[in-house]
Amino acid sequence: MDIAFVLYDKFTALDLVGPYETLAGNPAVTPHFVAAGRGTVRCDSGLPIQPTTTFAELDRPDVVVVPGSSAWRTALDDEELVSWLAAVHPNTTWTTSVCTGSLLLAKAGILTGKRATTHWTVREVLGELGVEVVTDRVVFDGKVVTGAGVSAGIDMGLRLAAELWGEEVAKMIQLLLEYDPQPPFDTGSPEKADPALLAAALKG
Amino acid sequence: MDIAFVLYDKFTALDLVGPYETLAGNPAVTPHFVAAGRGTVRCDSGLPIQPTTTFAELDRPDVVVVPGSSAWRTALDDEELVSWLAAVHPNTTWTTSVCTGSLLLAKAGILTGKRATTHWTVREVLGELGVEVVTDRVVFDGKVVTGAGVSAGIDMGLRLAAELWGEEVAKMIQLLLEYDPQPPFDTGSPEKADPALLAAALKG
Repeated sequence: MDIAFVLYDKFTALDLVGPYETLAGNPAVTPHFVAAGRGTVRCDSGLPIQPTTTFAELDRPDVVVVPGSSAWRTALDDEELVSWLAAVHPNTTWTTSVCTGSLLLAKAGILTGKRATTHWTVREVLGELGVEVVTDRVVFDGKVVTGAGVSAGIDMGLRLAAELWGEEVAKMIQLLLEYDPQPPFDTGSPEKADPALLAAALKG
Repeated sequence: MDIAFVLYDKFTALDLVGPYETLAGNPAVTPHFVAAGRGTVRCDSGLPIQPTTTFAELDRPDVVVVPGSSAWRTALDDEELVSWLAAVHPNTTWTTSVCTGSLLLAKAGILTGKRATTHWTVREVLGELGVEVVTDRVVFDGKVVTGAGVSAGIDMGLRLAAELWGEEVAKMIQLLLEYDPQPPFDTGSPEKADPALLAAALKG
């Protein structure tokens, strides 16, 4: 099973590495780190990742994982990226995104008329792209799976692992990742954070 | 503030990217991705990361983050890595690890007589290295901070952010990472997983 982990300038590392860590360790998986070119791709806080293949070379991935980016506006103008997503989607088993990655799926026409989630700060933007926006942390609609902001990719990856290989395998992955989270604060969603923190977050 | 994110052959990506995503976005931080050499480093499920500096070049990081690895036995024999950790530790503000990274800190003499945590599968190994093993998810002992397995690095990073920049900043980071986890199963720790799953995990 070929899984395409999609790289582009200034993507958010954890958006990608959450699903990667839940999926890529399975012996059935051949992971591909795919970008427009072979040059090193820098994440939005500086982590440099080396692509292993290019959009031109990888045309039939079984699963696609699209991370978001704090520079999502620029990413939406990346025609090579968006048109590759549109081209490979018809032949995937699963097409997935984390965080603002759902905006890229929407731009590629993959979410038209579908239910999807995204990072809480861009829910309106996703709606304007013709998508039925859901505030759930992970949303399945047919073969398209979307996760909410950044860390939601771990939850999405585990749920996808359960679909791909069954619940017992997914439970084992969760145990091996010791995923028994203890968030230090109760500010992980806009519904929980207090108004002052929310306002400061939206101000950037 | 210079933060050294330590890379070595077959490290576990999420161990590193959890703390990275909580810490490296702060404008006060200069992140460094440091390895023995300049060549691409492959994570244990294949993700290729490009170092930005070398052990020889980076001798005074303020914070050190050491990820674990499923190939931790081999990593413990990496004298260049272990001796660099021992050399830089006296001048750090914080020395930290995630998962089996604590075994490397122990090998470097940094955990002698200290309380520390690690991935649940290697608690005994850590004890044999002269460390008081704690099963907490995040453990602070002086300036040394250790996290439990893989995903615990997110919790560790947020708690470290609170120490570095105050709770309000850490709460904001948690909100922006939308860290309101919904693990799909209740198998994230050996205390919660059923005996059959535990036995299968230990069998590998």
